[in-house]
Amino acid sequence: MLRSVELKDIRIHDAYWDDIIRLIQDTVIPYQWDALNDHLKDVEPSHVIRNFRIAAGLEEGEFGGMVFQDSDLAKWIEASSYSLQLRPDAELEERVDEVVELIGKAQRPDGYMDTYYIIKEPENRWKNLLQGHELYCAGHMIEAGVAYYQVTGKAALLSIVCAYADYIDTVFGTEPGKLRGYPGHEEIELALARLYDATGKEKYLKLAEYFIDERGGKPSYFDTEWERNGRFNFWTQSVTERPNPEYGDVDHSEYNQTHLPVREQKKATGHAVRALYLYTGMAEVAARTGDATLFEACRALWDDVVNAQMYVTGGVGSTAVGEAFTFDYDLPNDTVYAETCASIALVFFARAMFQTDPDASYFDIVERVLYNVLPASMQQDGKHYNYTNPLEVWPERLGHSPLVTHIKPVRQSWFACACCPPNLARTLTSLGRYVFSTSESGLYTHLFVGCEAELSAGDMHVRLTMQSDYPQNGNVSICMHPEHGGIWTLYVRKPGWCRSATLQLNGVPMEAPLEKGYWAIERNWEDGDTLAVELEMRPVFVQANPKVRADAGRVCLTRGPVVYCLEQTDNGDNLSALRALPDLPITDTKIESLPCRAVGLKLSGMRREATSDALYAPYEARETPVMLLAVPYAYWGNRTPGEMLVWIRV
Amino acid sequence: MLRSVELKDIRIHDAYWDDIIRLIQDTVIPYQWDALNDHLKDVEPSHVIRNFRIAAGLEEGEFGGMVFQDSDLAKWIEASSYSLQLRPDAELEERVDEVVELIGKAQRPDGYMDTYYIIKEPENRWKNLLQGHELYCAGHMIEAGVAYYQVTGKAALLSIVCAYADYIDTVFGTEPGKLRGYPGHEEIELALARLYDATGKEKYLKLAEYFIDERGGKPSYFDTEWERNGRFNFWTQSVTERPNPEYGDVDHSEYNQTHLPVREQKKATGHAVRALYLYTGMAEVAARTGDATLFEACRALWDDVVNAQMYVTGGVGSTAVGEAFTFDYDLPNDTVYAETCASIALVFFARAMFQTDPDASYFDIVERVLYNVLPASMQQDGKHYNYTNPLEVWPERLGHSPLVTHIKPVRQSWFACACCPPNLARTLTSLGRYVFSTSESGLYTHLFVGCEAELSAGDMHVRLTMQSDYPQNGNVSICMHPEHGGIWTLYVRKPGWCRSATLQLNGVPMEAPLEKGYWAIERNWEDGDTLAVELEMRPVFVQANPKVRADAGRVCLTRGPVVYCLEQTDNGDNLSALRALPDLPITDTKIESLPCRAVGLKLSGMRREATSDALYAPYEARETPVMLLAVPYAYWGNRTPGEMLVWIRV
Repeated sequence: MLRSVELKDIRIHDAYWDDIIRLIQDTVIPYQWDALNDHLKDVEPSHVIRNFRIAAGLEEGEFGGMVFQDSDLAKWIEASSYSLQLRPDAELEERVDEVVELIGKAQRPDGYMDTYYIIKEPENRWKNLLQGHELYCAGHMIEAGVAYYQVTGKAALLSIVCAYADYIDTVFGTEPGKLRGYPGHEEIELALARLYDATGKEKYLKLAEYFIDERGGKPSYFDTEWERNGRFNFWTQSVTERPNPEYGDVDHSEYNQTHLPVREQKKATGHAVRALYLYTGMAEVAARTGDATLFEACRALWDDVVNAQMYVTGGVGSTAVGEAFTFDYDLPNDTVYAETCASIALVFFARAMFQTDPDASYFDIVERVLYNVLPASMQQDGKHYNYTNPLEVWPERLGHSPLVTHIKPVRQSWFACACCPPNLARTLTSLGRYVFSTSESGLYTHLFVGCEAELSAGDMHVRLTMQSDYPQNGNVSICMHPEHGGIWTLYVRKPGWCRSATLQLNGVPMEAPLEKGYWAIERNWEDGDTLAVELEMRPVFVQANPKVRADAGRVCLTRGPVVYCLEQTDNGDNLSALRALPDLPITDTKIESLPCRAVGLKLSGMRREATSDALYAPYEARETPVMLLAVPYAYWGNRTPGEMLVWIRV
Repeated sequence: MLRSVELKDIRIHDAYWDDIIRLIQDTVIPYQWDALNDHLKDVEPSHVIRNFRIAAGLEEGEFGGMVFQDSDLAKWIEASSYSLQLRPDAELEERVDEVVELIGKAQRPDGYMDTYYIIKEPENRWKNLLQGHELYCAGHMIEAGVAYYQVTGKAALLSIVCAYADYIDTVFGTEPGKLRGYPGHEEIELALARLYDATGKEKYLKLAEYFIDERGGKPSYFDTEWERNGRFNFWTQSVTERPNPEYGDVDHSEYNQTHLPVREQKKATGHAVRALYLYTGMAEVAARTGDATLFEACRALWDDVVNAQMYVTGGVGSTAVGEAFTFDYDLPNDTVYAETCASIALVFFARAMFQTDPDASYFDIVERVLYNVLPASMQQDGKHYNYTNPLEVWPERLGHSPLVTHIKPVRQSWFACACCPPNLARTLTSLGRYVFSTSESGLYTHLFVGCEAELSAGDMHVRLTMQSDYPQNGNVSICMHPEHGGIWTLYVRKPGWCRSATLQLNGVPMEAPLEKGYWAIERNWEDGDTLAVELEMRPVFVQANPKVRADAGRVCLTRGPVVYCLEQTDNGDNLSALRALPDLPITDTKIESLPCRAVGLKLSGMRREATSDALYAPYEARETPVMLLAVPYAYWGNRTPGEMLVWIRV
């Protein structure tokens, strides 16, 4: 199993990411703390801390918020932990310590810990796995416990979540007397794999395996539970024929990935975050157990997601109904969901896959998500977020068509279901985990992020410095300072988008063989050895597979890993009336109204002119030449609100 | 006010329409009779006749079917009446007489007549106007009563509906003690105008005016009623926050056109059938009262529908959510609703508008609907129907994406909510009403439908014969046999699609001035005078206004009034990979697998080839030349099921 670098071993210094990470540390984490404590003005109270205080007996009152409200706190602790790794902060650490103490007080003597059920329905523990989210919240709290322990060495929260996991292990399993259930919203599987790593206790890995393998059996646990609960629908608080009436005729068991045993699932289905958390958990378990058939199931699902169900921005989940995958090549750009959390989950899945299969294509996807949909989900001020990430926005339509009520023309301040901002915070503060992996044979470099790192594996013990202005340009240098001599391989990812690149070792041009998409440079590395990589970063028009109906006759402009879009503020309204002329030159340009690291692209195009006011008229090819300005999708919606379009007619 | 020809004065003999009308007479009307009587195998019982028998005390049992189930019978009686006009049928007439007798028995002594409320909620008459559909059903029964009276001279049903209307007039109005309500689903307004025509009783016209003018006042009657009913939602049978929760953030008062007083409404909104029935009623009333401001409101709404919210096929209603209009230029081709009934309502609206404003553009729309969306809604066997009429079908998507669950890849046999087939039946059996209108100055010819007619107005008394093979070709001849001499004007519509035409009078080429889109030929018509019109019917590519995002970069092929589409059975799969080459010639062709009157079109195009299996790849203009075969949209889905596409890339 290949291991990702641990956060303690890497320090990021990167022109692109430093600002974003600092924004998260300075703005997002404190802002979320205020949200958790109901200290924000003009925002619905989140009730999160209050729920824990009530559960701990420190306050009287009713449970508030969503049934999965506890997970917000867990994600905040996880993000805060990573932030502490990056930058010590006594005040923040004290806050975490205090809230961990509160969590401990809320925990029941048997280990159980879910404030909704503790406060509101103590008699109904584990009775609504389909909709109740207990195991989901448990998973997030486990991740928080592991993260805080790994960063600070403090074991208080780890002990709490171990006790909870131990208790869960007594409740669920195939043994007589145990419930043969599994989570309605997956997450605990991947969390238990992390808990296994942190504690070395195999029973956590076994419990993860149990949840994975039990899923999709027939008769379905959820069907039985649904009938046992008299079809009482938690979400509508009424009796409904099916748990997901909005799902229409689409098989509702696909929604939560219970339509087949997971090893037989070949197509990504249903709620995208659930699906990708499950697949991540499967890949994490397979990496640790060496379970080949489980890994093959993961690979089939991975291939389906990235080769047939992923947007060019790294967004996933084609429909708002069920926040879900639909089917291969169904990628509408306007009615898309593409939840931020789903793309985060795709990053997790990629990293988990790489542990078994050291192929560069996994980090091509990580890179696609990191430089496109993820930064696009957050406003430059760090206080406004996209929950969904469209590739085409026609603001006038949003208020008028029920198909797109989930899409917002401008980012929103916070959400009743506030899963995305804290998820973004924990992911970007732990960015370091995605930069390198180590294997017996050497060191893999996945991302071109400026950093210093100290890495060890097998005979390799090396301190290295990576410098880059990525993605502004493609010049990267990696300088080695091995602790001692020894032959090992430096693997450097050749990005999937890259058509032309040169390598120089200590200033001398070199060639290197490609192994599964990585340049493999095997040598006895000496102190000061410097590999310079130059990735040609010219603008490229990209087309979708012809099976993607929504992108027929359209192209998307890219430059390196960065996907571009047109905005109304630069190009006037009705972006659909524009087409690009792909044979004419494209030039880089500065955009005054965006951060200086955002490279704009000027391209030639045509604007279709109306020949009359008529709705329909005989075809006339009447067009006017125009210059178009494309900006990175990552920055869309940071200026005057208006139309936005990724796929341009050609 | 211009008057449409009455059905008794026209006999259609037309290559295109005879088959369709005969299919309705021989198949649809008897089939529906069996449906009304629950005699169909493998089809859910409709309960319609049984409901009337229960209400009449002839049978015991529960009400069955939808709350507006009575309207199915009304529409069947109306269609049967027109059918009797076209072709006497003693057995059918006896059936109608019997069912009229049954209706009379079901009617309450005070005139009330709605089987749902009579059987199921007698205490709740008029208490749920928003959702209860009593006034809607009343409207349809009034239309049936008028039709049967006009065709047969039998007044039994007319008396029944007059009694009902008289009773309704005592319930609703601005006078003290009356309810100031109006229908949740409009229809009674236009029906009362017809009842006024049939009886000459002004109070029916006044009642129609009342319903129109009361609508949209503040506070909203529906809001008050909704609160009074404790927000009990008839459709979900539970308490819900809003009557139309599926409507999301879109203003729910737009759904039933109560957001503004109707005279202030400028944009078509909400449920398309409701909207267009209301607008028709407004135009019918305005034509009879000469109410100029009401007519101006109608004109604004008409302009909005046909210039900004209508599909090229004549379909209307862009979204399935609420079966509704959305807003200007929002015309998605795949998620479209375009209910058959809505296009029928558009035909009614057009005819009603013409009564005040003799402009050819109204019948351009009637023609568009009649030769495209309406025939497309019915299978060639007369037993399968489209409720919704998409312009793009990707069958694999229909089972997988919740956005398109309302669209069916093949027509369905009958429906739980069976409004469309009987609506189609009553409209096409009364086709004659759309061919001519008369004014003081002469005779308007709207449609080129082979027929004989006897028409009188002012000094004109004429028998005429129209011969045409429309829309196979554009050659039409009209031969006059005036009863006596006299100068009057023959107005012949120059279709909006027509770029080139010639007129000949008695074999001699002539010119005629255009008056609001009609060739106006004023003369002292003599026996045997024959006007020959030749409309050049070459294939034309049509484009949408650039504001229609969904059609950007696409064209639609037309020939005369006929809109074409591509089908998978002729062109292979993935129709989106095809583009047309609009500068190359197009040739007419015969299609063996479709009726001989369907003219196929062969055109040159290109098919985009996949350059790899990759989802995204650098743009390459790799295409293969192909010949495409387009067929009339009216015939789509009559062969091997598969993809269909109206708007072709260019």
